[in-house]
Amino acid sequence: MPIKTDQLEDRLATINHFSNHEIGQNRLVYSSTWIKGQNQLIDWGLASGMTVTVDAYGTVYLDVIGSTVPQDVIATGSHMDTVVHGGPYDGLYGVIGGLQAIQNLVSRFGQPKKTLRLISFSEEEGSRFPATFSGSKHYTGFEDVTGIQDQAGNDFDAVRKVAIAKLNRNGVTAGRPTLPESFTELHIEQGPQLSEAACQIGLVTAIVGQRRFTVTVNGIANHAGTTPMSDRHDALQIAVTLINQLRTEALALSKKLTFTVGELHVWPNTSNVIPGKVTFTIDTRHVDERILNRFENRLKTVAEQAAISPVKVAVNRWVADQPVQLDSTMLAQNERLAQKLGLAYQKLASGAGHDSEIMSRVAKTTMIFVPSINGISHAPQEKTASPDLHAGVRLLQASLKQQAY
Amino acid sequence: MPIKTDQLEDRLATINHFSNHEIGQNRLVYSSTWIKGQNQLIDWGLASGMTVTVDAYGTVYLDVIGSTVPQDVIATGSHMDTVVHGGPYDGLYGVIGGLQAIQNLVSRFGQPKKTLRLISFSEEEGSRFPATFSGSKHYTGFEDVTGIQDQAGNDFDAVRKVAIAKLNRNGVTAGRPTLPESFTELHIEQGPQLSEAACQIGLVTAIVGQRRFTVTVNGIANHAGTTPMSDRHDALQIAVTLINQLRTEALALSKKLTFTVGELHVWPNTSNVIPGKVTFTIDTRHVDERILNRFENRLKTVAEQAAISPVKVAVNRWVADQPVQLDSTMLAQNERLAQKLGLAYQKLASGAGHDSEIMSRVAKTTMIFVPSINGISHAPQEKTASPDLHAGVRLLQASLKQQAY
Repeated sequence: MPIKTDQLEDRLATINHFSNHEIGQNRLVYSSTWIKGQNQLIDWGLASGMTVTVDAYGTVYLDVIGSTVPQDVIATGSHMDTVVHGGPYDGLYGVIGGLQAIQNLVSRFGQPKKTLRLISFSEEEGSRFPATFSGSKHYTGFEDVTGIQDQAGNDFDAVRKVAIAKLNRNGVTAGRPTLPESFTELHIEQGPQLSEAACQIGLVTAIVGQRRFTVTVNGIANHAGTTPMSDRHDALQIAVTLINQLRTEALALSKKLTFTVGELHVWPNTSNVIPGKVTFTIDTRHVDERILNRFENRLKTVAEQAAISPVKVAVNRWVADQPVQLDSTMLAQNERLAQKLGLAYQKLASGAGHDSEIMSRVAKTTMIFVPSINGISHAPQEKTASPDLHAGVRLLQASLKQQAY
Repeated sequence: MPIKTDQLEDRLATINHFSNHEIGQNRLVYSSTWIKGQNQLIDWGLASGMTVTVDAYGTVYLDVIGSTVPQDVIATGSHMDTVVHGGPYDGLYGVIGGLQAIQNLVSRFGQPKKTLRLISFSEEEGSRFPATFSGSKHYTGFEDVTGIQDQAGNDFDAVRKVAIAKLNRNGVTAGRPTLPESFTELHIEQGPQLSEAACQIGLVTAIVGQRRFTVTVNGIANHAGTTPMSDRHDALQIAVTLINQLRTEALALSKKLTFTVGELHVWPNTSNVIPGKVTFTIDTRHVDERILNRFENRLKTVAEQAAISPVKVAVNRWVADQPVQLDSTMLAQNERLAQKLGLAYQKLASGAGHDSEIMSRVAKTTMIFVPSINGISHAPQEKTASPDLHAGVRLLQASLKQQAY
């Protein structure tokens, strides 16, 4: 099978062009741009003779079958979806970089002994529906996300089925492949540490645990001019006070505890009406679960204290991902390979959640980071220097070679 | 012309049924429910032989021409539009109550000496487009609102023309009638004072001045997990701090100064991304313009202090209505009539803006309030007891009789 080398940046550009560069990447799971992305990947897999499988959640698997022990699978990959107005590398770099690494190996060393698998997970960000990692959760059999709606009221299962139907064609097998013995995820750091330390490579020791909550404040909508200030039950004013108070609590618990209110909605949201209802999300992360527990307890207490009749405050936790220690043996192997390749590296924990969190429950799992310029991510300005993109692929390639040949 | 008496509540119900009661009244200017409302009013006017005029902004005028001095016009009325999820009486009560009062007079006393005019202004709330009182501003020649868009990007002038076309038919004259010598606006209080004082009638001495601002905070969107708390430019966190600070400033200036943040928007508004941009509105009102000036100066200072590079904070004022003293002679007349009719009344200032503010610049203007149960308004729960609705119409009728016969 003929392989052109170094299609890395061309292929990243091809899929990124499906979104409007002005407003960034918008490959929300099961959207039209997401479907284009997964289909483009399938095209590349079929064109190079790889075995293509798509599961019921839309995760795409591209296999190069092993010669002697095909049942042993060495996997790499990441996710196809993005946040709203996201960047060009989050998720996609691990997918395209993984494909490039596998194809480079096959072109130089021929068929591997073990099966090499590129995985493009359907969804990891939780940006369209109130659930994260639905792709890797399905693949690992950990959980089948279902029965939820997006902000527009679209049903997860309905849009999922419509989208998957558009990935089906000749040469594509529907199904869920066996689990691999190892998984390596190539990803941008999405933080400032590597660029500040001038390292091309980050070897990930652990992934922070994260919890996401939706807080709903029910007050009483009323006229903005005739209702005395002392006689108001202003849902937004209560929410604003809660957010400030909770942020202070978070900073007091640990400087490394991140606290983000990323989404907020107001009803009726018109300038001359006192808001009757507000909802907002809280995203909080730390490597130590005890800190996350303490924050959650404080959140519940603060919310109860704010709920003075007739005001109601409800807290709903919809993400609870535990901190994860990644495989120490693979970490040590990657460290030796990085030294051998002369790549400047650093060990660090990941402040972002990743599919590796879920994969680590079923396979030896490790992650390779490359620097994010100024640490900017989840934004159109997200960028990684070209040499760093290639350095990550080189290390991944060396790791896959060692494991599969 | 045959007039059924006491159609007040039936007619209120007829127009209120154009909206969904579950979510309240939604007759945003030039919307389909607004068009139905103005057309229903035109039907009633034509059916009773009144002279029907519609101006270029969609304000409807129903005249009973005077016998001896038809050029002298005694006007009453209010506005047809509502806020988002509004109540059944704000605006509409003054329109239907005014029509009822005029028709009762004609049925009992025949043609008046002076012309009696019912006015149903197109828009007063400023809830769809960023401008208020566009109907009365056009009628009085004070200002022709133009060149603005609603949140969906619809052009004010375009939707206005489409809507007005749907009010045109046989018997309807297009044009802007001459200005009246007096204007009486019947309206619900929208506050708690009358119900707390157990008065059926409020005689309005003045209307508060109000200013509305939009504050835009530009920060930097970034990843919620990998960006250290110390390294963030979180637009929502800055907005939340500003709102708390400005509220404190407002309360310190005067207990009677109302401060409302009714509308707030977040970009990209997704749970795992630090907000890069936030806009929010401020609605502030007081009877003393000096207090409004002081608040506006504090707002500008506080906004400048919050704009620490790379964060930008912009303040845009889009409403500046001065406090208005209403006509003292008409107030005294209405007080005598209320006493004569044995109605318990109270003099008070209006915390809400009204078309009377604009009309007072061109005609002797007064307002008659009826109680709002629990002071609730601009919400589906807005309610006024049936006897109070009728009491307001009785006083209005007596006032119109005294002026036009």
